[in-house]
Amino acid sequence: MKKKINDESYLTLDENAQYFECGYSCDNGLFLKIGDNRFFITDSRYTLEAEQEAIETRIVESSDLFRTAADIINKNSVKDIVYDPNQITISAFERLKSHLDSKKELKGSPNFHRFKRIIKTESEIKLIQKSQKLNKEAYKNFAKYLNECKIHLSEQDLYYFSQQFLTHNGKYDLSFKPILGINANAAKPHALPSKKDKIKYGDLLLFDAGIKYQRYCSDRTRTAFFDKSGIVFKKCQNFKDKDLQKIYDIVLCAQEKTIKLLRSGMMGKEIDGIARGVIEKSGYGKYFVHSTGHGIGLDIHELPFISQKSETVIEDGMVFSIEPGIYIPNFYGVRIEDLVVVKNGRAEVI
Amino acid sequence: MKKKINDESYLTLDENAQYFECGYSCDNGLFLKIGDNRFFITDSRYTLEAEQEAIETRIVESSDLFRTAADIINKNSVKDIVYDPNQITISAFERLKSHLDSKKELKGSPNFHRFKRIIKTESEIKLIQKSQKLNKEAYKNFAKYLNECKIHLSEQDLYYFSQQFLTHNGKYDLSFKPILGINANAAKPHALPSKKDKIKYGDLLLFDAGIKYQRYCSDRTRTAFFDKSGIVFKKCQNFKDKDLQKIYDIVLCAQEKTIKLLRSGMMGKEIDGIARGVIEKSGYGKYFVHSTGHGIGLDIHELPFISQKSETVIEDGMVFSIEPGIYIPNFYGVRIEDLVVVKNGRAEVI
Repeated sequence: MKKKINDESYLTLDENAQYFECGYSCDNGLFLKIGDNRFFITDSRYTLEAEQEAIETRIVESSDLFRTAADIINKNSVKDIVYDPNQITISAFERLKSHLDSKKELKGSPNFHRFKRIIKTESEIKLIQKSQKLNKEAYKNFAKYLNECKIHLSEQDLYYFSQQFLTHNGKYDLSFKPILGINANAAKPHALPSKKDKIKYGDLLLFDAGIKYQRYCSDRTRTAFFDKSGIVFKKCQNFKDKDLQKIYDIVLCAQEKTIKLLRSGMMGKEIDGIARGVIEKSGYGKYFVHSTGHGIGLDIHELPFISQKSETVIEDGMVFSIEPGIYIPNFYGVRIEDLVVVKNGRAEVI
Repeated sequence: MKKKINDESYLTLDENAQYFECGYSCDNGLFLKIGDNRFFITDSRYTLEAEQEAIETRIVESSDLFRTAADIINKNSVKDIVYDPNQITISAFERLKSHLDSKKELKGSPNFHRFKRIIKTESEIKLIQKSQKLNKEAYKNFAKYLNECKIHLSEQDLYYFSQQFLTHNGKYDLSFKPILGINANAAKPHALPSKKDKIKYGDLLLFDAGIKYQRYCSDRTRTAFFDKSGIVFKKCQNFKDKDLQKIYDIVLCAQEKTIKLLRSGMMGKEIDGIARGVIEKSGYGKYFVHSTGHGIGLDIHELPFISQKSETVIEDGMVFSIEPGIYIPNFYGVRIEDLVVVKNGRAEVI
């Protein structure tokens, strides 16, 4: 269900929302839009830069962002200002409120800015594609390194080294800290890397990682078998363990079927239901402990959510992950993730 | 002014506060302490790991952290629960409140957990020392690289390469994105790296960076002259430009005088006043656009703040930065920063 909001006048403290609005953000800024007037309020550490970077936005220097925002709102004829109650703290809200004229009203609208960004423009889609392309290159280079490496690497080593490839030697930021699990550790969907467990032939390696290209995020997961012929982060995998292979094939089937069958017009929960249905039918329903996917863009997790509860109706231009998984505690975990963009009513893998 | 709080029962969503409490944190967790009972509520992605990592804390699996927290509070005889209104969003507060019995009360106490962490233990101080030691090593290695580098590096290149040294090739996390400015860009206290400006002999380079060691942050700034004999990130600098040298010497004097004269028993604003006094006396007061320092620990910015408003009384065991600066727009900027720990009433540089 897409929310209709009064988006004429709103404020946001969120850096990605600010960047989307004016091409600049910083860690102490407040973006305020009143009709056609756009303000970026920040302290003196950032004003010079903000003036150079922000587009069609008035920079206002202030040591009290909320008071200054209230002053601007009070001077204006606007009555309602939209804010996101998921992002504004109790303190911020109270400070803002205390300086506002009694006739002005703050209207809470959860995720209002993410709703504004839920359908990506062509140029945004291109940035996500480029981000994922660089991410895939990193996977290849990381696999090559692993296959040529003569020493026994722990999860923590793998975690460190993977970042060199992901960032392309520091050129790009990560969109999140990579998740990397060997065998039983892969059964924790968001595992911390261990120092003890070292990778050896016959192991399963789950690798979930992404980077940022011009602030747009990528995200991808592969679960791979490490044997003497080397590791390859592709979808076709041949595990020695038959039970593991069975589980892997169920996850792969769930992922591919979901990508094939999802259509615009479906709700997030219907798409989640495709993946969940495959896994439940195979008897592993209780081991699929998270949602099928999440929107991605400036935030690593944004709208639409592809979860059991999501009533967001999918439309062309939405970009999200499809990433079912099965996690057998103390045994192993499998997750396979790709990003898709909806075009002409169907999913295209990015 | 140190706030007295009822710290018997409280909750926090902040990862560093959670880590401090139980040695584990994740991005969807709620830590709840009721008297001697400690709970970490999280979803099924994290429960396995939380059970292995968290110390003396009951792990509770939930898909609705706030409802579960309310259920636990309701079952207990506790009446008041402390929370930080600077960290809890309007939505989170309302969700929690809606499930709480009417007799229970949520008590907002800004920064209550940072007040708990304001005086560091010996082992915390050692971790910060180790973090800063590794940070200093990175400065040395980065300078060596710069001095041996035969190509013309832009700020963005410097930004990328510095991270290799700061992270010790991916081994450590950054405590914040390094700030790096050449000449006029250094006049922006928190500059974004430019692609255009390339470093050459005769330039000023401001470099502000820090890393994390076992989650404890370091932070350091040097402003250095780059000439044919190479760059060295030490305090003694010889700039060709006499005006610049004058400004540099004022900042250095302000920084060293503050470290020398600060005492336990002073308020944050009195310590800020020492640095600000030196700079104001020299006629550059309006170009010192930020506070003198900030506490550091698990958060890169925590208590005590060394600012014009801070009434926090400094005590032994507090750790904070001393980092005055002068920024002349479109010309250049100078900042010098070290961390200090208060011991026996005086500052010791870390």
